[in-house]
Amino acid sequence: MDYFVSIQLDRNSKIPLYQQLADALYDLISKDILKANTKLPTIRKLANKLKVNNVTVINAYKYLEKKGLVYSQVGSGTYVSPIPVKDMPSPAYEEKKEIKQIMITEDSINFASISPSTDLFPVESFKCIVNEILDKDKGNAFSYQESQGYEKLRESVADYLKSYGINSSKDRIQIISGAQQGIDILSKALLQYGDTLLVEKPTYHGAIAAFQSRGARIIEVPLETDGMDLEILENYLKIYHPKFIYLMPYYQNPTGYSYSLKKKRTILDLAEKYNTYIIEDDYLSDLNYSEEKSIPIKALDHRNRVIFLKSFSKILMPGLRLGFLVVPKNLLDNILSAKQTTDITTSGFIQRVFDLYLRKGLWKSHINEIREIYKKRYIYLMKLLDEHLKNEISYIPPDGGLSLWIKLKASISVDKLSDILLSRNVIISPGSLFSLSKESLNYFRLSFAAVNEKQIHEGILILKEVLNNMNSDPASVEPIL
Amino acid sequence: MDYFVSIQLDRNSKIPLYQQLADALYDLISKDILKANTKLPTIRKLANKLKVNNVTVINAYKYLEKKGLVYSQVGSGTYVSPIPVKDMPSPAYEEKKEIKQIMITEDSINFASISPSTDLFPVESFKCIVNEILDKDKGNAFSYQESQGYEKLRESVADYLKSYGINSSKDRIQIISGAQQGIDILSKALLQYGDTLLVEKPTYHGAIAAFQSRGARIIEVPLETDGMDLEILENYLKIYHPKFIYLMPYYQNPTGYSYSLKKKRTILDLAEKYNTYIIEDDYLSDLNYSEEKSIPIKALDHRNRVIFLKSFSKILMPGLRLGFLVVPKNLLDNILSAKQTTDITTSGFIQRVFDLYLRKGLWKSHINEIREIYKKRYIYLMKLLDEHLKNEISYIPPDGGLSLWIKLKASISVDKLSDILLSRNVIISPGSLFSLSKESLNYFRLSFAAVNEKQIHEGILILKEVLNNMNSDPASVEPIL
Repeated sequence: MDYFVSIQLDRNSKIPLYQQLADALYDLISKDILKANTKLPTIRKLANKLKVNNVTVINAYKYLEKKGLVYSQVGSGTYVSPIPVKDMPSPAYEEKKEIKQIMITEDSINFASISPSTDLFPVESFKCIVNEILDKDKGNAFSYQESQGYEKLRESVADYLKSYGINSSKDRIQIISGAQQGIDILSKALLQYGDTLLVEKPTYHGAIAAFQSRGARIIEVPLETDGMDLEILENYLKIYHPKFIYLMPYYQNPTGYSYSLKKKRTILDLAEKYNTYIIEDDYLSDLNYSEEKSIPIKALDHRNRVIFLKSFSKILMPGLRLGFLVVPKNLLDNILSAKQTTDITTSGFIQRVFDLYLRKGLWKSHINEIREIYKKRYIYLMKLLDEHLKNEISYIPPDGGLSLWIKLKASISVDKLSDILLSRNVIISPGSLFSLSKESLNYFRLSFAAVNEKQIHEGILILKEVLNNMNSDPASVEPIL
Repeated sequence: MDYFVSIQLDRNSKIPLYQQLADALYDLISKDILKANTKLPTIRKLANKLKVNNVTVINAYKYLEKKGLVYSQVGSGTYVSPIPVKDMPSPAYEEKKEIKQIMITEDSINFASISPSTDLFPVESFKCIVNEILDKDKGNAFSYQESQGYEKLRESVADYLKSYGINSSKDRIQIISGAQQGIDILSKALLQYGDTLLVEKPTYHGAIAAFQSRGARIIEVPLETDGMDLEILENYLKIYHPKFIYLMPYYQNPTGYSYSLKKKRTILDLAEKYNTYIIEDDYLSDLNYSEEKSIPIKALDHRNRVIFLKSFSKILMPGLRLGFLVVPKNLLDNILSAKQTTDITTSGFIQRVFDLYLRKGLWKSHINEIREIYKKRYIYLMKLLDEHLKNEISYIPPDGGLSLWIKLKASISVDKLSDILLSRNVIISPGSLFSLSKESLNYFRLSFAAVNEKQIHEGILILKEVLNNMNSDPASVEPIL
């Protein structure tokens, strides 16, 4: 039967013809009307039938091929993919790629970056350490390191973890080249094509990209101010049997929310009950501005359900590319293999340098210094928001971290706001960046990692002005659905 | 119909019962007698039916789950996987994991390593560079680098490539954290689950592991002394439409063979004809001991079919973790995305240091020094083999690189040879390491990267003694099939 004659193209639509055609074919494939491995008509044949240009058909086929719905065989034609549409990785990642490149200049007021100003980096003490290592270890500093990581560094990490309430031996620690690599390696070790996992909604887009790259199915669990919605979480655990739950329990990215102790305990119990793992991404618990000590889920984990992921470099020295995992014993081998496949080993030189940096107590004192600086910025930013934008925005003070998750009271397009701000050289992170569906949330992330107090002041005044203008322009206000 | 009653278990066999059961189920699944998503009997039911222990069934199901043939749903049971057996990734990788950990001590004579002795590392000049960078760039040396790589380093790499006959601009260069990461990133950018690619047989096991981790289908093309067997290559290109061909055209790992210029040209033509890419892994073309200059395939590539992969660190400074790709324009975006997902960026600090190292001409002079040292070892090793083992072995002198691919004339088990040598503290790399099927080739790789002349001498005498003993022991000789 010829399903193709039924395809209707609207020549007056704003949607390009090739896209309409691709959508119609998508429909036929996803409804299983066009079966796996069916040969599609040749380009000329379909173009004739639908009275369109060859190029329209070519572009439609190319679009579908990019989405993985069809495949082409050189010299033979185009065929429907054997992989069911529902098993296709979500296309969100690919679309994210098209995010416009933002030019950041010296004059930019960058509320988007969560990397620190480079002037906070402790160059002098670092230089001493580097020279000490080169004098002491010589060429050995540049030999291959064992894939699990430099043994002495794993020792000092285990020691350092005690102050977090985490008891681990060096054997359970895997050194990684930064947090993103940690996520990538865990994806390789734990996810097969088509596996399911749970994330917070919203969440860190770099994690989503890594999971999607494995062809995994990502299910979002709404995040409340004290952690994941437990009812939905349990429901999803029951239905989906995910391989793991990925979460950031302190100053979550992007919301800044932290988990209550009660929720941490319950999620641990649920992981046990439904036989899954928790990846606990501690991306900046060290920047705690409150008196209360935060307790990692890993510290409560007596049943080996938690993989603890921490970067030394992500926030404070991103150019280092260094971090570690604390891993349940039965996962160690898989994770080590994934590390070997990924880059064999993390730079032995950097590992040696950082080991000494930890052993001399320099890391702790560096964190303490930086925390004071950020705390001042944090308080200053909140004071300004209170003074100038009380009626326009709301947020929950996170008590730590490097950003605020700002909700707009009016229904203004955040993407539009972000564009206008950009034209004024002020950069924010719109909420849509942090959602799988690129949903246009009514939120944006405002970070104070890379802005000094002068820039904060200037930026907030511009934000105020732009918001006021937008509020008085009816075209900016989105209908409430 | 009950297929399970037909299962026959042999209680007198040396094969464990659970394995026999798993094999029988495997057979039913692979013949499509047990269809996708069929529920398997409960453990108790099948155990009763076959009159075996529950544990036997549990272990059989677990084994099949590990192989991806079945999946379990908590509280519901075990089901046949919807992925056809023929599309399963080959299990070779998993089995490789079980390779015994070899203890390397100070007294070991290590003919297995292709990493250089650490005393060859240029510590002093490196130290000067590090200090110069820290004084000049300060904290900036530790900020995030753009994911494509530090711009100045890409410039100096483009410049450096001219001497290889490769004309590239900095825009086509992607910096990576070592060659293994390059392979991993290319796998992510080019391979979807179930895609096919071609490799040389034998080849580098780290590449196989990365490709398998993507669930790809790996097809081996026999390697002749001047490159891949072209007839088989073209045949496979026709049948399999691979995404790319992975090859090492100079001093191939493990064989040491180099491609003739004619074969390089033909393979380029074939890549164009069959619309595929070539990944050219240049892992040590710099160690050329002959007068003839080697020409990279990339230098001949006018049609953008070649991805050139080179490590700065693999052989000479493995602790650095640094390398680069030269990429056809239309692949740049995909590869950049894969890099971001993998580790965001390579250490900016290391990139800055190495950039200066290149700019000052120190890399070139370091290579020249090292080449002379290795050339001496290479000649010395061949002299000794000629003197002592002429009748036992044969090999083709590779004219470069860091190892010889030794063929045993008698049919001795190389794995056994390797075990006996290990007990004498001499380490070699048996040929089975380099084959997808772990086939017991009659070859081993003998590397001279990490052994000095004294150790070479001692090691060859031990090899001679062990081989002589094995030759006179009929149990060591394998039947010729």
